[in-house]
Amino acid sequence: MSQESERSPGDLTATGMALRHDREWDYELDRISEAVEERNANSVGLQFPEGLKRRGPAVADDLRRTLPDDVTVMLSGEPCYGACDLDTELMRHSEVFVHFGHSPMNESEQIIYVPLFSNVDVFPIMEESLAEFEDPEEDEDIGLVTTAQHMNKFEEMREFLEERGYTVHTRRGDERLTHEGQVLGCNYASADVEADQMLYVGGGKFHPLGLAMDHPEKRVVIADPVNNVVDIADADALIKQRYGAIHRAMDAETWGIIYSTKIGQGRLERARQIVEDNDDAYLLTMNNVTPQKLTNFGLDAYVNTACPRITTDDGPQFKQPMLTPGEYEIAMGEKPMDSLSFDTFHGTW
Amino acid sequence: MSQESERSPGDLTATGMALRHDREWDYELDRISEAVEERNANSVGLQFPEGLKRRGPAVADDLRRTLPDDVTVMLSGEPCYGACDLDTELMRHSEVFVHFGHSPMNESEQIIYVPLFSNVDVFPIMEESLAEFEDPEEDEDIGLVTTAQHMNKFEEMREFLEERGYTVHTRRGDERLTHEGQVLGCNYASADVEADQMLYVGGGKFHPLGLAMDHPEKRVVIADPVNNVVDIADADALIKQRYGAIHRAMDAETWGIIYSTKIGQGRLERARQIVEDNDDAYLLTMNNVTPQKLTNFGLDAYVNTACPRITTDDGPQFKQPMLTPGEYEIAMGEKPMDSLSFDTFHGTW
Repeated sequence: MSQESERSPGDLTATGMALRHDREWDYELDRISEAVEERNANSVGLQFPEGLKRRGPAVADDLRRTLPDDVTVMLSGEPCYGACDLDTELMRHSEVFVHFGHSPMNESEQIIYVPLFSNVDVFPIMEESLAEFEDPEEDEDIGLVTTAQHMNKFEEMREFLEERGYTVHTRRGDERLTHEGQVLGCNYASADVEADQMLYVGGGKFHPLGLAMDHPEKRVVIADPVNNVVDIADADALIKQRYGAIHRAMDAETWGIIYSTKIGQGRLERARQIVEDNDDAYLLTMNNVTPQKLTNFGLDAYVNTACPRITTDDGPQFKQPMLTPGEYEIAMGEKPMDSLSFDTFHGTW
Repeated sequence: MSQESERSPGDLTATGMALRHDREWDYELDRISEAVEERNANSVGLQFPEGLKRRGPAVADDLRRTLPDDVTVMLSGEPCYGACDLDTELMRHSEVFVHFGHSPMNESEQIIYVPLFSNVDVFPIMEESLAEFEDPEEDEDIGLVTTAQHMNKFEEMREFLEERGYTVHTRRGDERLTHEGQVLGCNYASADVEADQMLYVGGGKFHPLGLAMDHPEKRVVIADPVNNVVDIADADALIKQRYGAIHRAMDAETWGIIYSTKIGQGRLERARQIVEDNDDAYLLTMNNVTPQKLTNFGLDAYVNTACPRITTDDGPQFKQPMLTPGEYEIAMGEKPMDSLSFDTFHGTW
């Protein structure tokens, strides 16, 4: 038994997620420096996901040591929740723009995407997770998904399962996803595979809960190497919370329909359609969707056409009920209650 | 004595600020409709200051009644604190963009500025405020300033004071200001007049406190027709709080230098200069400056080159000390402590 499997749940030692392991990540500073030189750039913008913002200053230090003195390095202070969420305002000020920690949703010459792969050993917890699956002789089919952070080990994960007698089903999903087997918080098309049981390898419950909500017919096993825990994704609480929001919204007389100006979260046509069909609905535009921004409008309920996870996960933080576009149709009586489904986000921009 | 002067302080009746008086404001819907027709536009973006956002849906209703069915009306959900703070992301989605409640900081064909003038009677409280001034025979010079909201009565205010024997001193200030006698939260150049006593006519203490901080040599009398109160602007508490922030920041080892991407709040060169001269300073870019956005960086202190009122008024809401660029120079020992002054914002964009 390896050292890692002896860790208790939540123990971040040797997971690659502990702060003292920061510098083990490869920020690809050479690639950035080369781009600055090639383009004769005077300004570099760096964008990190929320959980890695704290590394920003140290990465900026390393870059400044390499780059000519007249190059300004800027760090995005905007929240960042995915490759859908590029800081387009900083991009406008940056001759070289670097987005860390997410895989490209849409390739662009202007943007350098630097993936940040976790160095955590995923196999001890995968071994432990096998107890949750049918024996290969009963059901040999397993669907396998993971996040961008562990993508570098995807083929090894597949082999690990195959060596234990399973047939591993994977697919790339749609154009929103970069890699075979990759899931996003808003898109689980890579789980549309011929298997009733799914293995999700990755940290936290955010992704597997979305997966369970999007694929209620599948059993979703979580092998979480970061928190060193095996679990089953159970979306029941999330689904009950959604029904609650729909019921509360049924009393609404006035609606705010939210369109986000974030580059990869815009569904303007969907928002426009709702407003066109409902005289008591108003189209509200904003970048980050926060409770404070809605309070001032004083409307009864909201429909969020931006990131679906704001609605499903953060919904309870908002004073008024907030629905996905599909949930709105249920609340308006246009669709039956049992048509509730996960608000998948397709396409890029 | 008029009815208004009998109101108690804080009584909003008949001030034009009470919610039930909303529709007394002239939103210039005809001008907007004409622009939509002229440009054959399909999209209209509306932006209201924070305090008037709640009127947005009703104004959208009125517009939708007039405009062709295929025109989409959008409301900015971003916070808005001045004419410096145009929602440029909504502008990009709007063929006609309307900014309500502030006077133009910079004219543009793309933007329709609709001033919203208060219908409150300013003269009863001006009458009451006279008790705070020297008799005209002792000191006949009064400087007069007000906000965009009361600009339509500026000439009457001047006459009111002149009829009572005063010489009224006014000026337009610099290019950031649209009107003679107008003040902004960040700019009191209109108060650079030959008078030791100033009359500020307008609601709240936000503007007169800035005025008192920028012109500590002048006595600033507040005639507040909205809250029906006369007061003297005292910036002492604000100044003490600033000294406190400077002292706390002196222990900082690492600095975040904030550059705001808001169209009228950008001082990139100033921010760049600080970062160039200090190896422990990092340039952070963001639109709205909020405590949450800074927390993730884990730096010791911040310098805000965006709206100075975020620093002076909201500073205490931030966990780490936040300084104006001038205060930063004091904290770094580059300038003496008594050089503390208001962080005036000049120019447009």
